[in-house]
Amino acid sequence: MKIVIIGAATGGMTAAAKIKRSLKEKVKITAYQKLAYPSLGACGLPYFVGDNFSDSNKLIARTVEEFDKSDIKVHVNHEVVKVDFVSKKIVVKNLETNKEIEDYYDKLIISTGAKARELPNIKYSLKNVYKLNQIEDAVALKAVNEKKNQNITVIGGGFIGLEAVENMQKNNNITLLEATPRLSQKVYDAEIGDLLKQELIDNKVNVITDARIKNVVIENDEVKKIILEDGTEVKTDAVLVAIGVVPNTEFLKGTLVKLNEFGAVIVNEKLETNIKDVYSLGDCALTFDRVTKQQVHVPLATIASKQGKVLANVIMGKNDAFQGSIGTSIIQVFEGQIARTGLTEDYVVANKIPYKKLFLNGVDHTHYVQGAKPIYVKVIYNPETKMILGAQIYGYNNSVLRINSIVPLIWNQTNYQTVRDLDLPYSPPFAKSFDIMNVLFGMLGGE
Amino acid sequence: MKIVIIGAATGGMTAAAKIKRSLKEKVKITAYQKLAYPSLGACGLPYFVGDNFSDSNKLIARTVEEFDKSDIKVHVNHEVVKVDFVSKKIVVKNLETNKEIEDYYDKLIISTGAKARELPNIKYSLKNVYKLNQIEDAVALKAVNEKKNQNITVIGGGFIGLEAVENMQKNNNITLLEATPRLSQKVYDAEIGDLLKQELIDNKVNVITDARIKNVVIENDEVKKIILEDGTEVKTDAVLVAIGVVPNTEFLKGTLVKLNEFGAVIVNEKLETNIKDVYSLGDCALTFDRVTKQQVHVPLATIASKQGKVLANVIMGKNDAFQGSIGTSIIQVFEGQIARTGLTEDYVVANKIPYKKLFLNGVDHTHYVQGAKPIYVKVIYNPETKMILGAQIYGYNNSVLRINSIVPLIWNQTNYQTVRDLDLPYSPPFAKSFDIMNVLFGMLGGE
Repeated sequence: MKIVIIGAATGGMTAAAKIKRSLKEKVKITAYQKLAYPSLGACGLPYFVGDNFSDSNKLIARTVEEFDKSDIKVHVNHEVVKVDFVSKKIVVKNLETNKEIEDYYDKLIISTGAKARELPNIKYSLKNVYKLNQIEDAVALKAVNEKKNQNITVIGGGFIGLEAVENMQKNNNITLLEATPRLSQKVYDAEIGDLLKQELIDNKVNVITDARIKNVVIENDEVKKIILEDGTEVKTDAVLVAIGVVPNTEFLKGTLVKLNEFGAVIVNEKLETNIKDVYSLGDCALTFDRVTKQQVHVPLATIASKQGKVLANVIMGKNDAFQGSIGTSIIQVFEGQIARTGLTEDYVVANKIPYKKLFLNGVDHTHYVQGAKPIYVKVIYNPETKMILGAQIYGYNNSVLRINSIVPLIWNQTNYQTVRDLDLPYSPPFAKSFDIMNVLFGMLGGE
Repeated sequence: MKIVIIGAATGGMTAAAKIKRSLKEKVKITAYQKLAYPSLGACGLPYFVGDNFSDSNKLIARTVEEFDKSDIKVHVNHEVVKVDFVSKKIVVKNLETNKEIEDYYDKLIISTGAKARELPNIKYSLKNVYKLNQIEDAVALKAVNEKKNQNITVIGGGFIGLEAVENMQKNNNITLLEATPRLSQKVYDAEIGDLLKQELIDNKVNVITDARIKNVVIENDEVKKIILEDGTEVKTDAVLVAIGVVPNTEFLKGTLVKLNEFGAVIVNEKLETNIKDVYSLGDCALTFDRVTKQQVHVPLATIASKQGKVLANVIMGKNDAFQGSIGTSIIQVFEGQIARTGLTEDYVVANKIPYKKLFLNGVDHTHYVQGAKPIYVKVIYNPETKMILGAQIYGYNNSVLRINSIVPLIWNQTNYQTVRDLDLPYSPPFAKSFDIMNVLFGMLGGE
């Protein structure tokens, strides 16, 4: 069997490694990667910018040489320009020589990941405009961060934007522009978004929500000033645009492969596209929400690596299927931490799902052991089906890992009355004897 | 309705507060408490000894005056000496005046908690022998701790012993004697017990397991030396005996109330004893293991407070039942932390339950964000029923709160194949993109 992987991102390469381990010499695996390296751990980019580490190679989970040792051939600086799904042929351009070669596959994996979205009026081609999607981006932004005392404008209050703000704030003056009324509005409800905003303000970040850009002052290919619709002028030495990602699927446009409206590959639970022997996974593909059964785009490494293992099974002929996502995530922003899972209140309102909500606050452990900190839990639930729909926890010192008690309940759509007295761990340095999660489960269970 | 509570420990007083909130003047509640204070949070005692705080009143969850404001009358220094279950009458001795009074009840709650077990050859009446069960004990032991540079022998490697060791080690030389081959053998498997032992050794605690006491040298009512069967001589300035607790139920011996072989009150899921209108809960009673359906003694505040809420419902006529325990606990010993839930390997072996085991080790978050620490996960599972039987996690910095993802699975006896791809939270400061729990669930689920 000959497997070709387009794009050596996490998902495809996880599948490759597992298939190779099982099938050994019975399979030939070749990956073509446009970038100069495979297996980028993009989630590390903000931490590299913040100088948590200085060797950018640490961002590469597995090198070309390491894949080579496992008998997986990775061609970097090779861009796939055309796929002929009928004759199972691909055309690849060597970006160093500009020569084109052809290759053939029995099974094709599309694992091209995603790239940074671009703003129409603040292009990445400008000298002081940055993105944070590849190693080169991080190296450039790190140089800005290390200049110190710069006025840096971060556009976009999502995960990458927030982590970049935290990592550059020590050295620089940061303004965070978020176009919507709340930070990370698609993943956090208002109560949690407000706590996040306050954490940023407490750390001297100039946070501007509802920031609609009216005008951008550009001189000598550099953004000098961003003028908002309300008249606010943001002077800037550098701009990081972090407004999300779009799938790297241009080469598939107009082909037989079904993409959604923003270019994500549509796959089923087996990671199969609409074309036989063609698979896709990770940031370039859609996945499905386990609760709503809707197709969703969840560009997170944790999804890609799980899908990679499933895809390996599918390609090796096992009857397997990816179990889906429930949108779980966690983030640290300065001292504040947010863990979340399931649906947001905005989503259930928009989709007319019946719901009630609880917003609890408490302390993460007993007052008599030092270091006790506030903890906040927001939950939305369906009182008719007795199911938790979504949960968000704001806290400190890993206390937010309490989300782990809710994840399996949403995952398996467990009736919350069954966990009213759930036996969660308690001792004075970790919890109160009636922990906030037990308060929550008690209230849900109608104690 | 007239409710009498014998013993003002957590369970009974939680029930009282809830009943009073609901029924107001329709109920009269009186509690008789042998100690000088109600509602002791005994789990705080080791932290008081270690001077995490100096006001011992912080150990009292709710004072007599506070109960008084809620119209719950607590008589401290009052010992119940006799109960007549036929005429629903109790005889109470005022320990200050030695006078006896009588009282009558419609509903009786036995909530007397538990007291420290005593060794036959190292009695608490000796001058330098301590226990850690009441405030007076902690005040006395704190004075020893603050003398500094004492040779202190702690007997018993259970929760209280371990927490006391940690809290006294900074000031003193500690020897920990554990009679069994492992520390906390009833709750931790060998792999986890070994890690715990190493943490203690790394912190200069002299740990002696399999420590069978042969002889105790006592001079002037003080223990001077403990001689073990293998000839080891442990010189000591003070001894803390922390070998577990026994229910405070002497006054029930020979009465109609059914007790188990070590004096714990036998109750059903409604917290009812074998006698109509007589209830018991908390450390003086048994509860049941949700998985094995066996009666178990779990003297932990978190169980007592949940039972208190259930008992309130039962007494108020609601059809309610306590959902049980699965033996979840968590402890911090120096930097090391252990969370555990479910059954131990010893238990399943002894009970011939079919099982397999996994012992994984990894790192709690990405190597490129500072502070990454080892994490160890031990799981036993039944490959026939596809159920997790027990789990133990050893780690640092609250990473062990990952146990929360397993608690609901054991609690509801969920088939572990359903959580193979469980969507647990990931970002670089918290986890690896393929977290150790996903490795675990992947292996269990046969990915």
